[in-house]
Amino acid sequence: MSLLVVGSVAFDSVKTPFGEAEEILGGSATYFSTAASYFTDVNLVAVVGEDFPSQHMNFLKSRGINIAGLERQAGKTFRWKGEYGYQLNEAQTLETHLNVFQDFKPALPPFYREAQGVFLANIDPELQIDVLNQVISPKIIACDTMNFWISGKREALLNTLKHVDILIINDGEARQLALEANLVKAAKIIRSYGPKHLIVKRGEYGALMFNSQSIFAAPAFPLENVFDPTGAGDSFAGGFMGYLLNTMNFSEASMRQAVIFGSVMASFVVEDFSLNRIKALDYEEILKRYKEFKQLTHFEEPVDVFNQ
Amino acid sequence: MSLLVVGSVAFDSVKTPFGEAEEILGGSATYFSTAASYFTDVNLVAVVGEDFPSQHMNFLKSRGINIAGLERQAGKTFRWKGEYGYQLNEAQTLETHLNVFQDFKPALPPFYREAQGVFLANIDPELQIDVLNQVISPKIIACDTMNFWISGKREALLNTLKHVDILIINDGEARQLALEANLVKAAKIIRSYGPKHLIVKRGEYGALMFNSQSIFAAPAFPLENVFDPTGAGDSFAGGFMGYLLNTMNFSEASMRQAVIFGSVMASFVVEDFSLNRIKALDYEEILKRYKEFKQLTHFEEPVDVFNQ
Repeated sequence: MSLLVVGSVAFDSVKTPFGEAEEILGGSATYFSTAASYFTDVNLVAVVGEDFPSQHMNFLKSRGINIAGLERQAGKTFRWKGEYGYQLNEAQTLETHLNVFQDFKPALPPFYREAQGVFLANIDPELQIDVLNQVISPKIIACDTMNFWISGKREALLNTLKHVDILIINDGEARQLALEANLVKAAKIIRSYGPKHLIVKRGEYGALMFNSQSIFAAPAFPLENVFDPTGAGDSFAGGFMGYLLNTMNFSEASMRQAVIFGSVMASFVVEDFSLNRIKALDYEEILKRYKEFKQLTHFEEPVDVFNQ
Repeated sequence: MSLLVVGSVAFDSVKTPFGEAEEILGGSATYFSTAASYFTDVNLVAVVGEDFPSQHMNFLKSRGINIAGLERQAGKTFRWKGEYGYQLNEAQTLETHLNVFQDFKPALPPFYREAQGVFLANIDPELQIDVLNQVISPKIIACDTMNFWISGKREALLNTLKHVDILIINDGEARQLALEANLVKAAKIIRSYGPKHLIVKRGEYGALMFNSQSIFAAPAFPLENVFDPTGAGDSFAGGFMGYLLNTMNFSEASMRQAVIFGSVMASFVVEDFSLNRIKALDYEEILKRYKEFKQLTHFEEPVDVFNQ
């Protein structure tokens, strides 16, 4: 089944305590597409400038990603520069240059309009709804957002959320969107805005998924070497949505499996700069880490301790 | 089986965004003993002043806790005053008055020396080893510590750790003790100091248990109303050690169950001030929450998605 994603394709310059890299391939749609490509067909919608090399185009194609919707425009590609401290939890953004992204008006290639799944990565909520309106009959829609849109375009964001099944954001964003410090309460408030499911990403602490029936807690994979956290959230979303589109099973059990596949893809991506670690995974590696998540979290029913 | 604990019995004055309370019953040994009392016999070692009311003594006795080792000395009981912000993660300590705790030299009642399990709560590591040396043949020994001892009495602490099976500390303490930011690496370093098992408490994010074979990740229970986090770590340790002493099974599987019982007790204690919520739990409630932890974390093996 085909999964449409709209978001950024970018050049990142990243500094971590373990190294630095200039103008490497990045962007929310790039990470999402690559992670999702292990599970399903991906239709990428984004814009790049004249400086975007064919080598990166070829990489995306090599992953089977449709790039008919990847526009090339006069000007320069979106650039982001950030730095992480030893805690590796949140990047300090040093520079953002929207460049060709500034006036991006996505027009979907006709066959993209048939997509069964849609992921609206973290972009202007007006663009998000504009893209969503071009998809004829999506079966499942997820989106991301950030503090900039929550405070700056709240009404447009709330309008987008009315049409979204699953919102995937971090804990700070959830608290800010709901204006509520307690996450359980915040989840109820956010679900009242439209999304039936809320996934709260908590970096090294994993993710929580809330719906009307239950809460699911998934840990992050404890890694000895976290090299660069950039793209972890988008790779999580890519693994998550990719699995759902593969199975087209949106039951609670299936969505929990999807959260684990998302966590698996995020755990790989942080092991190296850019998409290096997820450029060419094999399925054995992915399944092995899924099983390691199972071992990481498994516990038995208690023995009857209360016969006193 | 009997479980000896040495630590503080105190009066706490606590302010949270949801209320405040003056001179309520607290202290590491109090929380630990009460949580553990649901699982096993507890022998409490601590000191209080002349101002400690018989009502609190009676409460401890009502939980079946042995207080033969709870000395009463001339002077005032240990007092702690702290405040939490909306994040509820870490208390800001406003006042600490050691009072009778200052010159505490525990001498164990003879029958205490037969204890099968020992928990050395967060006190001077020289006191910890002194108590441990008085126990004849303990089968399992756990301990806690804090930044104050890690920086101020490192050598004494490392000496205590040589004799300890399980160290239970928070993530900041683990990083400080190992001088290593990455928790997986920090766990290896700390286990080289002596403890075969390290449990890292992460507050609202749950706990990680490290040993030579595996890592176990347990979430915290997502609560809609966290009222006062004081005592959560000690109640966790109490549920954890209580279960182990009940079963006397120290296998990996049993220790994982013990982590969940610890998490259950911690999840109850934060729902109210002091020990109010765990004063009189019934076993049904405890088992119900254990099962809720199971639902919170359960996921199935994946369907075979990679037949492409």
